[in-house]
Amino acid sequence: METEELQRLVDTSPVHRALGLRARAAQAGVVFDASPGPEHTTDERDVLHGGVVATILDTAATFALIDSTGADWSTVDLRIDYLRPAPVAPLEVSGHVVQAGRRIGRARAELAERGSGRLLASAVGTFVRAG
Amino acid sequence: METEELQRLVDTSPVHRALGLRARAAQAGVVFDASPGPEHTTDERDVLHGGVVATILDTAATFALIDSTGADWSTVDLRIDYLRPAPVAPLEVSGHVVQAGRRIGRARAELAERGSGRLLASAVGTFVRAG
Amino acid sequence: METEELQRLVDTSPVHRALGLRARAAQAGVVFDASPGPEHTTDERDVLHGGVVATILDTAATFALIDSTGADWSTVDLRIDYLRPAPVAPLEVSGHVVQAGRRIGRARAELAERGSGRLLASAVGTFVRAG
Amino acid sequence: METEELQRLVDTSPVHRALGLRARAAQAGVVFDASPGPEHTTDERDVLHGGVVATILDTAATFALIDSTGADWSTVDLRIDYLRPAPVAPLEVSGHVVQAGRRIGRARAELAERGSGRLLASAVGTFVRAG
Repeated sequence: METEELQRLVDTSPVHRALGLRARAAQAGVVFDASPGPEHTTDERDVLHGGVVATILDTAATFALIDSTGADWSTVDLRIDYLRPAPVAPLEVSGHVVQAGRRIGRARAELAERGSGRLLASAVGTFVRAG
Repeated sequence: METEELQRLVDTSPVHRALGLRARAAQAGVVFDASPGPEHTTDERDVLHGGVVATILDTAATFALIDSTGADWSTVDLRIDYLRPAPVAPLEVSGHVVQAGRRIGRARAELAERGSGRLLASAVGTFVRAG
Repeated sequence: METEELQRLVDTSPVHRALGLRARAAQAGVVFDASPGPEHTTDERDVLHGGVVATILDTAATFALIDSTGADWSTVDLRIDYLRPAPVAPLEVSGHVVQAGRRIGRARAELAERGSGRLLASAVGTFVRAG
Repeated sequence: METEELQRLVDTSPVHRALGLRARAAQAGVVFDASPGPEHTTDERDVLHGGVVATILDTAATFALIDSTGADWSTVDLRIDYLRPAPVAPLEVSGHVVQAGRRIGRARAELAERGSGRLLASAVGTFVRAG
């Protein structure tokens, strides 16, 4: 899928727009920049809410499947591993497909600090093809 | 913990305030009303973003441990099971402690439609005592 | 499903027979007695291997779906929470269906010491209807 | 850790010996050959029981942490993703550390057919340092 087309789909959700998700060209899978703000924290300061981290990871994993298959997918279940507190800072998230079956898909995602590449959290989930 | 004290802690996060999380008196564990809006959807219409569902569940599970122990806890990992699309509607989430150890805790949470009690999603996670 | 029919299906697997899995009549879901031995431990003494605990939980969750629907189901993914070391001792495991859809099912299982009812581990998983 | 020392620790468990787990020298993490038999199947024929797959993955993930730190670790929780039916055939499993903290560790494992390298299942878990 072209980066512009991917961005257009991502922009459908106000949740994605609020997080400043921007699709980047990727060798494999999908990559997004994310720019969360103080409204996404646990304490109005500098640590992102775990649910916001889950949101970014879920989005990247789901769009890895959408990008790869051209179909829509819904999350069936998701596991998130929180490795380090995620700061209010420029982040990047990558998503990639593990398996895209006729009905069931699997995808992974990793959230890192942009620049340092320091891994903050990862996720793996099961998805179902919509429609 | 008194419901007012619990609400005060919940209100620390702008993420919780945006979701309209309101603590209710509970027999066991914690219960919150949630009132998400169109800004929490995948499509500006009526289905909540899976990350928003994760946010509500993570919050209820974490506060079940906080409420039960008086200590602060951080999410180590979390599994979310999405059972049905969650609507923009009055919701309620319950959280309860599975095990609160000296260092490691486990908690569960369930998200349902307020009124019907229809189960929308559930979560189970591992947590670590902060400090 | 009748308890005898359930037992017959369980006995198909040599893994189940080695664990001494015995179906019991249950009000809801399925319940099995398990009688693991020293061959199921990490150290030839008294703590069961985590994989053996996973085996018992996976079996109970899967058979909850089989018992409830009369169809066969395969595990898509499974999360196991280990709460306490599981001893070489009489155990009991219960499984129950969370959701049995046309294609995808969800089930949970809990492993406890027989007698005391002390909870040792739990699991939740996603399953796909076979055939 | 030397491969011989790793093998010695692995051989402590009768569960590992029954699966024919053999440590191989690895560039990073740990790698084991596994040689399950018909006693590990769901039906005495050719598909491994999901619990056996979980056992092999749990072992590889745990030993990745043991090998890396020289300390003992216990599984707190584990997620297994079943991608394809695992046959009674020569298999190989790799384990690697995601994070080895002072108290909490994370590790992953992947099970594949030996030879083809075809991925059969993967796992990710949270572990606690023993002692």
